[in-house]
Amino acid sequence: MGHEVKSDIEIAQNAKMVPIKELVNELNITENEWEPYGHYKAKLSLSLMERLEKEEDGKVILVTAINPTPAGEGKSTVTVGLGQALNKIGKNAIIALREPSLGPTMGIKGGAAGGGFSQVVPMEDINLHFTGDIHAITTAHNALAAMIDNHIHRGNELKIDVRKIVWKRVLDMNDRSLRNIVIGLGGSLHGVPREDGFDITVASEVMAILCLSKNLADLKERISKIVVAYNLDGEPVTVRNLGAEGAMTLLLKEAIKPNLVQTLENTPALIHGGPFANIAHGCNSVIATKLATKLGDYVVTEAGFGADLGAEKFLNIKTRAGEIKPDLVVVVATIRALKMHGGVPKNKLDEENVEALQSGLGNLEKHVETMKEFGLPHVVAINRFIHDTDEEIQTLTSWCEAQGVKVELADVWAKGGEGGTSLAERVVKEIEQSSNNFKPLYELNQSLKEKIETIAKKVYGAKDVEFSANALKQMESLKENGWDNLPVCMAKSQYSLSDDPKKLGRPKDFVIHVRELKPSIGAGFIVVLTGNVMTMPGLPKEPAALKMDVDGDGRGVGLF
Amino acid sequence: MGHEVKSDIEIAQNAKMVPIKELVNELNITENEWEPYGHYKAKLSLSLMERLEKEEDGKVILVTAINPTPAGEGKSTVTVGLGQALNKIGKNAIIALREPSLGPTMGIKGGAAGGGFSQVVPMEDINLHFTGDIHAITTAHNALAAMIDNHIHRGNELKIDVRKIVWKRVLDMNDRSLRNIVIGLGGSLHGVPREDGFDITVASEVMAILCLSKNLADLKERISKIVVAYNLDGEPVTVRNLGAEGAMTLLLKEAIKPNLVQTLENTPALIHGGPFANIAHGCNSVIATKLATKLGDYVVTEAGFGADLGAEKFLNIKTRAGEIKPDLVVVVATIRALKMHGGVPKNKLDEENVEALQSGLGNLEKHVETMKEFGLPHVVAINRFIHDTDEEIQTLTSWCEAQGVKVELADVWAKGGEGGTSLAERVVKEIEQSSNNFKPLYELNQSLKEKIETIAKKVYGAKDVEFSANALKQMESLKENGWDNLPVCMAKSQYSLSDDPKKLGRPKDFVIHVRELKPSIGAGFIVVLTGNVMTMPGLPKEPAALKMDVDGDGRGVGLF
Repeated sequence: MGHEVKSDIEIAQNAKMVPIKELVNELNITENEWEPYGHYKAKLSLSLMERLEKEEDGKVILVTAINPTPAGEGKSTVTVGLGQALNKIGKNAIIALREPSLGPTMGIKGGAAGGGFSQVVPMEDINLHFTGDIHAITTAHNALAAMIDNHIHRGNELKIDVRKIVWKRVLDMNDRSLRNIVIGLGGSLHGVPREDGFDITVASEVMAILCLSKNLADLKERISKIVVAYNLDGEPVTVRNLGAEGAMTLLLKEAIKPNLVQTLENTPALIHGGPFANIAHGCNSVIATKLATKLGDYVVTEAGFGADLGAEKFLNIKTRAGEIKPDLVVVVATIRALKMHGGVPKNKLDEENVEALQSGLGNLEKHVETMKEFGLPHVVAINRFIHDTDEEIQTLTSWCEAQGVKVELADVWAKGGEGGTSLAERVVKEIEQSSNNFKPLYELNQSLKEKIETIAKKVYGAKDVEFSANALKQMESLKENGWDNLPVCMAKSQYSLSDDPKKLGRPKDFVIHVRELKPSIGAGFIVVLTGNVMTMPGLPKEPAALKMDVDGDGRGVGLF
Repeated sequence: MGHEVKSDIEIAQNAKMVPIKELVNELNITENEWEPYGHYKAKLSLSLMERLEKEEDGKVILVTAINPTPAGEGKSTVTVGLGQALNKIGKNAIIALREPSLGPTMGIKGGAAGGGFSQVVPMEDINLHFTGDIHAITTAHNALAAMIDNHIHRGNELKIDVRKIVWKRVLDMNDRSLRNIVIGLGGSLHGVPREDGFDITVASEVMAILCLSKNLADLKERISKIVVAYNLDGEPVTVRNLGAEGAMTLLLKEAIKPNLVQTLENTPALIHGGPFANIAHGCNSVIATKLATKLGDYVVTEAGFGADLGAEKFLNIKTRAGEIKPDLVVVVATIRALKMHGGVPKNKLDEENVEALQSGLGNLEKHVETMKEFGLPHVVAINRFIHDTDEEIQTLTSWCEAQGVKVELADVWAKGGEGGTSLAERVVKEIEQSSNNFKPLYELNQSLKEKIETIAKKVYGAKDVEFSANALKQMESLKENGWDNLPVCMAKSQYSLSDDPKKLGRPKDFVIHVRELKPSIGAGFIVVLTGNVMTMPGLPKEPAALKMDVDGDGRGVGLF
């Protein structure tokens, strides 16, 4: 396709980046409103947002996808590519993305900075320590944990029940051995023995809070509401009870500022925050998205996993917290992934298989229906892969047209923005011409049960919801604590519309099983667990770290 | 003294800082040789060191002190004040300091950025996340830990004895509950159960390595030599055996670059690395000190705790690793601390007590003798406090003069550089006029026993050394592994010349008890433990964190 096939890191290291001070100048950001982090990264001050508060909002385009498969969908790649393409057709576009977590980078090859000629750069920095935000979250989270155990060690005035501490510790690492641990051993000088465990940092409620806060005061208020434990009378113990909110906010005062970088084609990109998309809401920060709407006429942003998880939460949770008005949703699909949804094993994906493609289309169909439920204009983007045949592409586009679904081919991995101009033009046109009747799918004053059922039926296509006895009891207790007016944050398998990861395509007549509910009062949602969710990943037998190194010029090797 | 009494943070927040790009320009550092971290911090590239390699070295002034007491000695304050004073008298001086650890900042009021009008700034940044170096060390350390447990979980090809894993995990937090833990619980999917524990990050061997490495290649080579465990045959298992050195080096590729900031009087200061001064060598990085000698005609640097620990290790360990030639030692003493060494309790220190002062002088006397043992020019600096009386100061200066010891009063806390000009002039004069016969106190080819005895007798003034049966056995095994040609790194109470923290002043006829030896092969020394060393501090009943907050302008509150 005109380019030699280079690895992502080779392309990224050869990028012609604009110095960040120039990018900042182009965005009319003044000296006091930004700070450089190296020559190609910046943090933007919260005062910038205050200055621009009255400006008109740019259009918000949310990029989501079908349910992920091992074939890869390229949601970030399309997000970056679409941003570049909008600029190519003369629009002022800006991208808002999640920050990748370092733990998985050490484990499995891959990152969240796009791919091919649609990447954000400097890629190495973004995938390693970046501007330190995740480290600050780790620190704030663990400072609270240390203060809890210190409180107990020093007499436990709050009568915390050590069997009911719900605040674990975190590390930005894939480290399965820390999932279940016993701490406080070694005698009376070394704390009080109890069961504990580590999550990966991006699963921390602090991450979710940082991403949903509007400003520093909101951040502090949310932190103070975190429930860390229950006392011997069963009452919640909060961060405010421990007096830790000030110190935690201090530790996060730089991390709350959004980070500015650029794409390979010098399109500005805000990369800020990256919460899990199951036990949290899976979107970059409200602050970054809001700021992007002030800096650009078009904002392209993404949400984690498929539309049943990431987009649902963007639309039901993040839009409320951030008062964000979405304008259009792009649903990314690939021929390969749809074939997997149609039953093709991974090693056969390079072969043409129109029949399997047709049988996998149901997955895309459901997500498109969901966007209709939300009342939002939407476009399907086919993220082109090299082995896609004309017949397959024709099958997919014809199917879309027959359904009245807008569809465009995007070749942004191989061609960058140039490969996404038709998608960009279609997106602009649909925003201008389609009617937007966006509304979250439920009202906050509905019961938790009603909210869960609404999502299960309207978003997943479930027949019914079964609640465990435990879940029913927890709903009662959540109500007693006055927490039932919060949105729900569904933790479900990302691989299937159902809660069974093996049911690909568009499963029918299935039941969603709600096992447990957990309050994230600081973040402002109730997590609803439909199965086991792994909040601390492990490393594979041959971790990617084994191939990593630094070359003679101090540049990264083996990152991607 | 002409100044109102303001808190350190008030003084720091009112500092008139020079933008870092101007400071960099003044030092003739070119665009490609530095990166900004905000408007007032920079990282300097390793290529800068390469360019300046052939330049003549500036003079190296090491600031050390008497044994620390709760009265405070102000070693960092004198270091900063002396650097400012040297510039005041027309010299081109630069400061090299250790980076403070965040954990203790959350625990006890205090930091390591100097005090009063002799501070490095921006103080908040330096005391919180700074440029992320300590977070990078935490990450590299814990990546290795995860890879060890993953190796065992995946079949344990190296036959690691899970009872003999010596690589713990780390956090930059005061968290006593993590000192002794059991990990890998929860069944066969979650690792292999074993005993483990967390140290504070600055106690990590990775920190010691970062601070002793000359460049990126040396860093990687040292990392690869770290001994993480012993196998079932009792043989050492290293990082190289696990193949983790490349990834760890990659994670540290920015952290190895020294950080440039400034003092309140705009004197350049390199702040880089901060290893423990007991189980490690307690000095800022070799790279920062070496670079400072190329950028300044005078380098003022410090080492942790008193001269028996920090200075001894600077002179026996760091000078060898970094090929650094020290020119003069400043021994800081305060009237208050000497009175404590003479038996005065903390609440009586404001009262004049010449007798106690005289009886505490023995502590200073021993450290001065040690500097003579090293063959180094030295000056005693009396760090002035507000309650010091003329009679007390007279007593101390007369005593020094009677001993032929050079002494100067320094009033740098209250007056900044202006209060240290006589000290600065004396330091310059002594470097020019005194003979310098510096030599480390032992040869590397001496036995471990001989090295330990040399330090105990010549630096501590001990009568003898007693080795535990365990320590004797370990010396044999260290020799068998070929590790007996390394320098020793003594872990002893910092409060006393002896290994009994209660013996203040100048104890006599005491015996040093060597309990245990631990190889730090990556750092390149053998740690010699003379008692229990706490490598994970705890929080006090009322942690400093409880008073911390952020004000309406996003500035830190309650930090100091």
